[in-house]
Amino acid sequence: MSDFKISGVVPPVVVPDTADHQLDVPSFERLINYMIDAGVDGLFFLGSSGEVVFSTDARRDEVLREAVRIVDGRVPVMAGIIDTETERVIEQGKRAEALGVDALVATAPFYAIGGAVEAEEHFRCLHDALSLPIFAYDIPVCVHTKLPWKLLAKLGAEGVLAGVKDSSGDDVSFRYLCQENERLGHPMSILTGHEVVVDGAYLSGADGSVPGLANVEPHGYVRMWKAAQAGDWATAKAEQDRLNDISHIFDVTSGLVGYAGGVGAFKTALMLMGIFDSNTMPRPVKAMEGANVEAVAAVLRANGLL
Amino acid sequence: MSDFKISGVVPPVVVPDTADHQLDVPSFERLINYMIDAGVDGLFFLGSSGEVVFSTDARRDEVLREAVRIVDGRVPVMAGIIDTETERVIEQGKRAEALGVDALVATAPFYAIGGAVEAEEHFRCLHDALSLPIFAYDIPVCVHTKLPWKLLAKLGAEGVLAGVKDSSGDDVSFRYLCQENERLGHPMSILTGHEVVVDGAYLSGADGSVPGLANVEPHGYVRMWKAAQAGDWATAKAEQDRLNDISHIFDVTSGLVGYAGGVGAFKTALMLMGIFDSNTMPRPVKAMEGANVEAVAAVLRANGLL
Amino acid sequence: MSDFKISGVVPPVVVPDTADHQLDVPSFERLINYMIDAGVDGLFFLGSSGEVVFSTDARRDEVLREAVRIVDGRVPVMAGIIDTETERVIEQGKRAEALGVDALVATAPFYAIGGAVEAEEHFRCLHDALSLPIFAYDIPVCVHTKLPWKLLAKLGAEGVLAGVKDSSGDDVSFRYLCQENERLGHPMSILTGHEVVVDGAYLSGADGSVPGLANVEPHGYVRMWKAAQAGDWATAKAEQDRLNDISHIFDVTSGLVGYAGGVGAFKTALMLMGIFDSNTMPRPVKAMEGANVEAVAAVLRANGLL
Amino acid sequence: MSDFKISGVVPPVVVPDTADHQLDVPSFERLINYMIDAGVDGLFFLGSSGEVVFSTDARRDEVLREAVRIVDGRVPVMAGIIDTETERVIEQGKRAEALGVDALVATAPFYAIGGAVEAEEHFRCLHDALSLPIFAYDIPVCVHTKLPWKLLAKLGAEGVLAGVKDSSGDDVSFRYLCQENERLGHPMSILTGHEVVVDGAYLSGADGSVPGLANVEPHGYVRMWKAAQAGDWATAKAEQDRLNDISHIFDVTSGLVGYAGGVGAFKTALMLMGIFDSNTMPRPVKAMEGANVEAVAAVLRANGLL
Repeated sequence: MSDFKISGVVPPVVVPDTADHQLDVPSFERLINYMIDAGVDGLFFLGSSGEVVFSTDARRDEVLREAVRIVDGRVPVMAGIIDTETERVIEQGKRAEALGVDALVATAPFYAIGGAVEAEEHFRCLHDALSLPIFAYDIPVCVHTKLPWKLLAKLGAEGVLAGVKDSSGDDVSFRYLCQENERLGHPMSILTGHEVVVDGAYLSGADGSVPGLANVEPHGYVRMWKAAQAGDWATAKAEQDRLNDISHIFDVTSGLVGYAGGVGAFKTALMLMGIFDSNTMPRPVKAMEGANVEAVAAVLRANGLL
Repeated sequence: MSDFKISGVVPPVVVPDTADHQLDVPSFERLINYMIDAGVDGLFFLGSSGEVVFSTDARRDEVLREAVRIVDGRVPVMAGIIDTETERVIEQGKRAEALGVDALVATAPFYAIGGAVEAEEHFRCLHDALSLPIFAYDIPVCVHTKLPWKLLAKLGAEGVLAGVKDSSGDDVSFRYLCQENERLGHPMSILTGHEVVVDGAYLSGADGSVPGLANVEPHGYVRMWKAAQAGDWATAKAEQDRLNDISHIFDVTSGLVGYAGGVGAFKTALMLMGIFDSNTMPRPVKAMEGANVEAVAAVLRANGLL
Repeated sequence: MSDFKISGVVPPVVVPDTADHQLDVPSFERLINYMIDAGVDGLFFLGSSGEVVFSTDARRDEVLREAVRIVDGRVPVMAGIIDTETERVIEQGKRAEALGVDALVATAPFYAIGGAVEAEEHFRCLHDALSLPIFAYDIPVCVHTKLPWKLLAKLGAEGVLAGVKDSSGDDVSFRYLCQENERLGHPMSILTGHEVVVDGAYLSGADGSVPGLANVEPHGYVRMWKAAQAGDWATAKAEQDRLNDISHIFDVTSGLVGYAGGVGAFKTALMLMGIFDSNTMPRPVKAMEGANVEAVAAVLRANGLL
Repeated sequence: MSDFKISGVVPPVVVPDTADHQLDVPSFERLINYMIDAGVDGLFFLGSSGEVVFSTDARRDEVLREAVRIVDGRVPVMAGIIDTETERVIEQGKRAEALGVDALVATAPFYAIGGAVEAEEHFRCLHDALSLPIFAYDIPVCVHTKLPWKLLAKLGAEGVLAGVKDSSGDDVSFRYLCQENERLGHPMSILTGHEVVVDGAYLSGADGSVPGLANVEPHGYVRMWKAAQAGDWATAKAEQDRLNDISHIFDVTSGLVGYAGGVGAFKTALMLMGIFDSNTMPRPVKAMEGANVEAVAAVLRANGLL
């Protein structure tokens, strides 16, 4: 069973780009410090919203190197090692380990069609080849495989997995996973990536959250976690409701799908708030412009963030 | 408009592994020669069934280096440069170009959620950054984006794409693409990956095929192409029907899904036929064993291949 | 805005069949009384688990007639009027109205491919043609259309819809719907059908629940509702956790998919508990037998229900 | 094994509505005669594009009664008996039988989640309860179950099914079905609903087609069938290509999805051609208007149909 435990708010860090698609280190530093100062409990780099699949290996190394330097031990650093199949993911993991992160986050294998048999073997291979604690990243919307909760629980009990980062959108499966993890002695740290219903996930027994929206407003997520810890669910719900008002930066724009509208909204908000110098997106995604930027700004203003 | 034209049978080459997951060069050489001797018109390396997403960058380079050496100019070499998003695919493309292949094959971007806007920009970026002709690989079952035929035709007419390798399973869209390509002066070479209905694809106007089953039985595909070229559709259909009898190596096994059952059947057949030394699969996929190997052998025997 | 308000626990009533597929009225009466005696706040007949799509029109009428007779005004009666497209649903609604139910529940149109435009027009037509309050039943797993929360909120504010029965499995959309309904003055009663995470739905602001599992164990759902109403979330969570242990009747069987495993587990449990005389399923679904019945019994025993 | 055999072109008949949503009998008669005069080999009423799921039972009866009267034995009449689950479909079948049609067409059960086990039992129940030959209508886009070709072949060999109407969009499965049907002695008549690649389906071994576009242009489909029968595949392909040019009535409109754009295009074309008096659609679908009507007209003019 893994010794690594993490709980609380662990935002997936959005990555700022310069106009010519280089890593914008000063903006990155401002964002990291903004969230640590707000009291987050960890940071997750190279997640889906952290441009991991858009980044070359050299760029991934640069992101992690700068992240470790800037964080400087203030909170644990989790690193996504996302790639298609086992051998490639192991390579990503070895490079991340060399850069001084604290835990690794890997998805089910993707592109080739497989199932639970391949997913299980994949995580076993990662565990054998790597030294750091491994979190399973359950994100079927990107990898098109749902990790079964019974498999996750088994791998946790055996010490193959240190935890789960759940972005499955399946709150039923999440609840069963939390209950089974508890029954097994709580071997895993279970984090929800579902930023709009974090209060419910905490009530279900989650150990923490990985809310993308915490890039924009970390304070509310920190307060919600403290309220939930104290059993003050009315406050937790009120914080979540307020954060959800801000989350409409996702749905007030038009003509954008998926990453362009989601991470694009984060970057645009951070630019408007002065934390990022630009809202440049990684190729082939276009940055928000014109009326869409205005729409995001209106939501921020209505919620006191501008 | 691209000068690169290809037609006829261009099998996606299956890759042999040793028991410890190294490239089995002698088996690879036997397979390549088997297909060239049978009269195929080109070879496609590092396709979906060519282990591309299972292979590290070093392994991809090794596969292409050996492929170019073994083929030695006898037929054109197409190379898959499959990776998640634009910058990573460009890197794969530059390495492939340096290794002496003749054309590149790239899918729509995957993992991050996007749409036709991102797909179009992606292929434009690839075209700008790379020198060799680029084929769009339309494989929604793996990348979960269908490339619209109107977009493909437009990119062909503008010279961004030299061709399309269609594994979409959408024969309606394929027909429209062939008709539109014709209307535009036939700028693209359009290849079907649909090995079980190649005769119908030829009738629809396809320039050629990329049949995985041609690893096992290339002669029938070569004869079918010649018959179709001659307008002898009864013979083309008869060849396809016979090949389809062999294709049941896909569905006589049990307990295997996706890659394990599909490419696993190819490798097992090639092992049984003495072309491969083993049917080892790339991690995390398990090789076929026992009754499944027997079931594949029975199909081969019934069709005169053993 | 509709005058009809409902809150609390409103189970979707499972329907007992005799061996020759007739309505088993004595068993039906036992089940209805079991739930009303446990303190449920309403009953929903002819829902997805109430065999609505398996029942001829004559059988639907019989179910509603007996339901109204047995309930006898003790709790409100909601009736599913589920059919493919508008004219057929209106006919179902008129017949249900004539039988004395209190509210109607209709899905988005299904079978023909459509979108939000057709869904909106559909509910407007139902509202024009029918007199009773109408609940939208959001169940994309059956009808393959997700009702957008912005559309539902709009139709609620205009008085077209009296409420929503959400079985979408999309807790993010559900949360937004609850928040928007509140902002609009709470025109709709919003019920969750998500029996395993009802506590979280209540925390999100749901007015009540429609839990299939309450056929088997209504008392826990009644206690959970009271705890949530009192702001005692720790008790609500504990009740949910205990109910979830019982809910494993869904996943301890093998060889059954969908309805056969889900509603089959309810009927089998009710048979084992002596409430139903048989676990006969409607054609073409087969009843659970042998080891599967034993597996359900084991779960019930472990949880004190046998 | 069924005695009923059908081959050639069997269009699914589109149904004309008056402005107040009544059956427009004179328009219906013009359309039926237009297609019979063009030489079609049968007519399929109450198919997906024949408004079956939009029609009340009374309306379905009216459609079949008028159809049988107008056709008057000139060609066989096939009737869709589409409803959700077994008992309801049997009722539809008995009413259709009483109205004098020649064969029945039923889909897999839908709405309730099931699988191949339920589909098999469903068709066996229909066969037991009904007298006329039964065709399986494989249309996963509407019913969300794909009928496996091995199951269809087995049911054909046993005489449960007289044929298959394939609208699955899965040309691989279709080819396997045709080959297996041949191997079994051709017990079933296999018809493709894939109007844009009918030539390829004929080459695959189909006995005929059910092309919606034949409502607009039956002559080309009749000529294509004759060419295919004669082994003149070049002519068959040329006819298909020309029909496909007309089929762009599906994709020149904007703002319409699914049924509204597909059947809407047929009705609009028939109105423009003077066969229908109106292009009224069944509720909740809106009729095409303005620029969309113009766009359809432009396609018809470009192809000599106006």
